[in-house]
Amino acid sequence: MEEKWRFKGNEELSQASAVTVRGVLNMVMENLNGDDPRPVIPLGHGDPSAFPSFRTTTLAEDALCAAIRSAKFNGYGSTVGIPSARRAVSEYLSKDLPYKLSPDDVFMTIGCTQALEAIVTVLNRPNANILLPRPGFPYYEARTGFSHFEARHFDLLTEKDWEVDLDAVESLSDENTVAMVIINPGNPCGNVFKYEHLKKVAETARKLGILVIADEVYDHLTFGSSPFVPMGVFGSIVPVVTVGSISKRWIVPGWRLGWLVTNDPHGILIKQGVVASIKGFLNISSDPATFTQGAVEQIFENTPSDFFDKIVNTLRESAKICSDRVQGIPCLTCPSKPEGSMFVMVKLNLPLLDDIKDDLDFCRKLAKEESVVVLPGVAVGLKNWLRVTFAIEPSSLDDGLRRIKSFYQRHAKKQ
Amino acid sequence: MEEKWRFKGNEELSQASAVTVRGVLNMVMENLNGDDPRPVIPLGHGDPSAFPSFRTTTLAEDALCAAIRSAKFNGYGSTVGIPSARRAVSEYLSKDLPYKLSPDDVFMTIGCTQALEAIVTVLNRPNANILLPRPGFPYYEARTGFSHFEARHFDLLTEKDWEVDLDAVESLSDENTVAMVIINPGNPCGNVFKYEHLKKVAETARKLGILVIADEVYDHLTFGSSPFVPMGVFGSIVPVVTVGSISKRWIVPGWRLGWLVTNDPHGILIKQGVVASIKGFLNISSDPATFTQGAVEQIFENTPSDFFDKIVNTLRESAKICSDRVQGIPCLTCPSKPEGSMFVMVKLNLPLLDDIKDDLDFCRKLAKEESVVVLPGVAVGLKNWLRVTFAIEPSSLDDGLRRIKSFYQRHAKKQ
Ligand SMILES: Cc1ncc(COP(=O)(O)O)c(C=O)c1O
Ligand SMILES: Cc1ncc(COP(=O)(O)O)c(C=O)c1O
Repeated sequence: MEEKWRFKGNEELSQASAVTVRGVLNMVMENLNGDDPRPVIPLGHGDPSAFPSFRTTTLAEDALCAAIRSAKFNGYGSTVGIPSARRAVSEYLSKDLPYKLSPDDVFMTIGCTQALEAIVTVLNRPNANILLPRPGFPYYEARTGFSHFEARHFDLLTEKDWEVDLDAVESLSDENTVAMVIINPGNPCGNVFKYEHLKKVAETARKLGILVIADEVYDHLTFGSSPFVPMGVFGSIVPVVTVGSISKRWIVPGWRLGWLVTNDPHGILIKQGVVASIKGFLNISSDPATFTQGAVEQIFENTPSDFFDKIVNTLRESAKICSDRVQGIPCLTCPSKPEGSMFVMVKLNLPLLDDIKDDLDFCRKLAKEESVVVLPGVAVGLKNWLRVTFAIEPSSLDDGLRRIKSFYQRHAKKQ
Repeated sequence: MEEKWRFKGNEELSQASAVTVRGVLNMVMENLNGDDPRPVIPLGHGDPSAFPSFRTTTLAEDALCAAIRSAKFNGYGSTVGIPSARRAVSEYLSKDLPYKLSPDDVFMTIGCTQALEAIVTVLNRPNANILLPRPGFPYYEARTGFSHFEARHFDLLTEKDWEVDLDAVESLSDENTVAMVIINPGNPCGNVFKYEHLKKVAETARKLGILVIADEVYDHLTFGSSPFVPMGVFGSIVPVVTVGSISKRWIVPGWRLGWLVTNDPHGILIKQGVVASIKGFLNISSDPATFTQGAVEQIFENTPSDFFDKIVNTLRESAKICSDRVQGIPCLTCPSKPEGSMFVMVKLNLPLLDDIKDDLDFCRKLAKEESVVVLPGVAVGLKNWLRVTFAIEPSSLDDGLRRIKSFYQRHAKKQ
């Protein structure tokens, strides 16, 4: 019997996955050879939580379990977040700012992901456009694409330690441009913006009348010469919406606790209806678990500074292994050493390779032959580059990069 | 200095909150009198987790803490949910079905809320419409409204224990109708649909070629003559998408773990692209905490049946207190006694009251004079009714209903 069904799935949603990191990594990982006795080396994604060197502090686990055992956080929270969590985040972030955030500036979200979703949804309107970095984090493209919110791309400058091309920001923007996104410390580039550069970003945005969305999910994960400077420092030049989470600094991306914070001493975001709209978004959305919100104050207070030091030292060590080994692989060049986050972008010199068509082809064959997973640059907007995650156990990283070297040697063009 | 800012907040989001239960309750609670020495009696919302009689089982807390302590669930899960959680939910739900669900039928979500958001987003397309119950759960109206997805309302029939008006379903639907929603056990009516009625719902939907969305967030919370029958039982008549969570049966709405399940032995949802679209939605959305997913198998296995019995007995007792006391308040009538969920709809007989304009006015004055919070029916689509939550500590419920009686006596029209 032939049925006539009147419903079907929205195809834009089905296609949205193709452009995400997860979607592209799945395409690469389909090529893994199950018969290889060696362990798979995951240099593709930013989640080192499974490695012993990156195990979170048990004090954070204690805080979470204590919140659960108290039975005080079994109920619904409020849409904007429970008061103790908002206060804890405002105090935590205020430490690095020249002014004090109020708990009312903080909205608790389900990881940084929901914070991004919120601000993108809030700013969207017919004909509006938003400026995104290239290379970048493709979640922004997926979300704006799905909501028909026009994205325009400015480059991060390879030769200038991945600084924002501010001339491009000016020339791309028009009267329908509402915001620009920066990611600092950088995914995928591992760069850390300097104070002076961030100030110029703020001044450019103010001149253009646009909001700055500062994705600081990798905040404080810096190990080079530039310290982490939060964009909120420039909140009196231009309103800044900062998004972040405990996912990366505490190495607990599975805990799903993040925030959206308005850095806006002049109250412009309230006046422009952005705050009311954020509340509206949260009101029709699911919330982060109440007990995780209930634990965050203790997580901030109890985490010993050695935990952070250990993580940053491990990242420094692995970033160095990564740079050193990449130098010994002729088909790869790294224009600037990573100073933060968990990633570095390396350029693929295809003419040195015999039978490799492009970055995706490189990654597929590498997965198949060496059981090493790397993200093709095309996934983050730079074709024929690779994004290499160094945030894994240093010994595994070393093993993975050696395998990439053998791969190169096998595929090198004969002179 | 006058600035020209190019961004503003999406106003539809700001307005969305007005139609949610939380939004209307806030309007009522603004009237609470802080000087009243008596405790506030919350008969407005469905979250009894703070009351001793509704404390969740410590075995569920154990399972959650064990998952956290294992450090196996600190990382990102997969977009559709981790395999052990999908398997656990498929087995849990299959117990009440004539066929076995596969783990692939299950998608883990951030409470039932995200499951609803997912299916509404997936089914939306230009000109489509969806049939919603009246009275209903206003989240559906908020979400469809925000996404410009036309909602048409069929009545639940007051005189027939809140059964679906199936004639209305047929006459409302046209070639652009894609789905109908039922909530069973019912919010806001506290009704429980009988097997035969659900079968007729399935047959009607099949005839119309539309999907049935079965909101079973109150599954198994029944204490009257009708047992809970999951809509999935009729999955071979019509495809059914069931949404649910641990929020209500385990009294842990703050834990934020739910599911979207396809009950579709003929694979129609795959063929129509609905499953691909659900995956796409989840791919660009945040996930439920990985450790909560990691705990769900143990939560299902370890919860003793006395816990469920105790909760259901408490609900039965409070539902009875509620019906009995309401009978003694002339301005309220209850057309059918609640048999499930946490709520009952009672009709307000305004002509018996002196100075009360409508349901919202009743609730505001009640909050002010008696510190009792009740949801005005207008919030759920029935003006001049009230939704009373009986899922609170029985002694508080009794107190609250006595206060409503005094309120009536003070406001009764003099003959
Ligand atoms: C730049 C960037 N923003 C946001 C996120 C999402 O963070 P969360 O896991 O807290 O949702 C990520 C995760 O990898 C990221 O790299
Ligand atoms: C009918 C109905 N559906 C869905 C939900 C949301 O459930 P959850 O808390 O699991 O997101 C509720 C919550 O009250 C509800 O009453």
